Amino acid sequence: MSTSFTLLARDGRARLGRLETAHGAIDTPAFMPVGTAGTVKAMLPENVAATGAQIVLGNTYHLMLRPGAERVASLGGLHRFMNWGRPILTDSGGFQVMSLAKLRRITEEGVTFRSHIDGSPHFLSPERSIEIQHLLDADITMAFDECTPYPASEEEAEASMTLSMRWAERSKEAFRPRPGYGLFGIVQGGIYPALRLRSAAWLTAIGFDGYAVGGLAVGEGQETMFRVLDETVPALPEDRPRYLMGVGKPADIVGAVLRGIDMFDCVLPTRSGRTAQAFTRAGTLNLRNARHMDDAAPLDENCACPACSGYSRAYLHHLFRAEEMLGPILLTWHNLFFYQELMRELRAAIAAGRLAEYAAGYAAKEAA
Amino acid sequence: MSTSFTLLARDGRARLGRLETAHGAIDTPAFMPVGTAGTVKAMLPENVAATGAQIVLGNTYHLMLRPGAERVASLGGLHRFMNWGRPILTDSGGFQVMSLAKLRRITEEGVTFRSHIDGSPHFLSPERSIEIQHLLDADITMAFDECTPYPASEEEAEASMTLSMRWAERSKEAFRPRPGYGLFGIVQGGIYPALRLRSAAWLTAIGFDGYAVGGLAVGEGQETMFRVLDETVPALPEDRPRYLMGVGKPADIVGAVLRGIDMFDCVLPTRSGRTAQAFTRAGTLNLRNARHMDDAAPLDENCACPACSGYSRAYLHHLFRAEEMLGPILLTWHNLFFYQELMRELRAAIAAGRLAEYAAGYAAKEAA
Repeated sequence: MSTSFTLLARDGRARLGRLETAHGAIDTPAFMPVGTAGTVKAMLPENVAATGAQIVLGNTYHLMLRPGAERVASLGGLHRFMNWGRPILTDSGGFQVMSLAKLRRITEEGVTFRSHIDGSPHFLSPERSIEIQHLLDADITMAFDECTPYPASEEEAEASMTLSMRWAERSKEAFRPRPGYGLFGIVQGGIYPALRLRSAAWLTAIGFDGYAVGGLAVGEGQETMFRVLDETVPALPEDRPRYLMGVGKPADIVGAVLRGIDMFDCVLPTRSGRTAQAFTRAGTLNLRNARHMDDAAPLDENCACPACSGYSRAYLHHLFRAEEMLGPILLTWHNLFFYQELMRELRAAIAAGRLAEYAAGYAAKEAA
Repeated sequence: MSTSFTLLARDGRARLGRLETAHGAIDTPAFMPVGTAGTVKAMLPENVAATGAQIVLGNTYHLMLRPGAERVASLGGLHRFMNWGRPILTDSGGFQVMSLAKLRRITEEGVTFRSHIDGSPHFLSPERSIEIQHLLDADITMAFDECTPYPASEEEAEASMTLSMRWAERSKEAFRPRPGYGLFGIVQGGIYPALRLRSAAWLTAIGFDGYAVGGLAVGEGQETMFRVLDETVPALPEDRPRYLMGVGKPADIVGAVLRGIDMFDCVLPTRSGRTAQAFTRAGTLNLRNARHMDDAAPLDENCACPACSGYSRAYLHHLFRAEEMLGPILLTWHNLFFYQELMRELRAAIAAGRLAEYAAGYAAKEAA
């Protein structure tokens, strides 16, 4: 009746899986490119698919403000609107309300705020967030939560987490189950193990199709993030996908997969692509740097993406210097391809029972 | 030894032809998308080719300033630099020196000026312009000329034209003939028939692989432009391609083809695409207009381009409202496709001897 998740292999705590949704299957561990306002920035949707992406993320907050959820619904839903026929996960709006909206006021009922675009007043609650995600026709709907600020005291983190758990109950109530459509809960609790465990147990008792770990990658650092995952992930149901929200750098993803995470999203590959930052096996490159001006070599000679197959570093450098749109287009494509290639390698390593070895090699390359 | 031009059919003064160059053939009448700084703005080169474009234009002025002609040469030439394997025509830099450069000083020898980008001093002469175009590896090199200002008195236009003709002689001297590479002269003379005829005769006496009509589409209006073409084109050699520089709107192109023009370039489809203007059979549309906000119809239901096949007007409107790069990408693609479709139809009409009928239908649609 909902999304279905099949575990295909394990390697330590890492898992190889397949998540079936109304618009197709997702091989996990999976990375979801972010399509904030109904487009993965600078990319044609067929090219997003060509990188290997099987699912993209849409932002409830952005889409409710512009063009509006009812409008997207009347135009046939988000898949048709943005010409992306594969699965879509929408976030709940909770994170952007905290990071972008103006004049927020949080009550038990929900959050009133003003749009960062035009100052217009809006209201989000668990019921409205779920309704919007239904209107968008998201394959995977996220429960509405409050993103706990960082740093937060244990008392603040507890108050925020328990509010999010009561909102998770209301999200579950509001969600309309349909075949191929799923609802994920979000574990909160900041950096406090007892809170994380309470949150995980609370959500498990409610029952969700998947479990996200929220409130990380907000400034706590990789070491703390990995510790929270070590403490939290074992408390989540084995038979449901686990999604680490807003993460991250390649090494963050490798470490989180080692700790049992199945799904990721992050603006890093797309945002970096627009600012001339390219991910390579040997680290990140800034293509604006003058040292690339005469370099006839490709961005990454081991990469099969169009940016690396057809162009020199000198040309990419030129495009960014000249502020030509093709620079962001090519670098976004490369970075998304790089991330999908990483996920392909992680899945292959888990299938082969060689993830520890792969991860060690990756860490060594990162440090080099 | 140079480019070769074959006339395949005639229909009135209009011609169907094929121009062979070192990097491939061009079916004429042809429209050349403008790739100012080594990229057709917002387009991947394979997508420019997918619209049907067989040749693009590169700008000597822009490329000499950034990244520099010697740099492009050391990176393998402009085709390799921008990953465009088909023919390239480069302009001579004369037009941009007049319209963009600072602190110009024109002498018989050439033009000194300062870069509009960083104020650095530069010099262009017939010899240097041709050298730059050789360094870029242009299939078609344009003679260096002075673009006569508009309006200009007959005396001013004559002085400017005769300078351009002396520069055309020096351009011919400087050009290094190679198989598949051609040099085009540029007819000047403003709106004055006697000057245009003198210029055409002068260039024909020098001898070029093709003949451009320059100094039009600078504010004189379509009626005057067509009159100048009526007076000038018959004075050009029958067996060489004729190129109307910087033109134009679809109706300008139809009218110029009727008058015997074979080649065109213009920033209109690409620039319009970036500013939400779309060309359709029924006229131009501004996708920013709020009336498209809820319109589920495609931009142009008779168009086979990706923007019209996959997206609604409402979505395109949303992309421009949200300032998403995909808006310019899709509309540029549509406009370039529209222009190439126009050229395909013009060629088919000439081949069928039905150009007058096609042009009349086009004029009626323009007026509707």
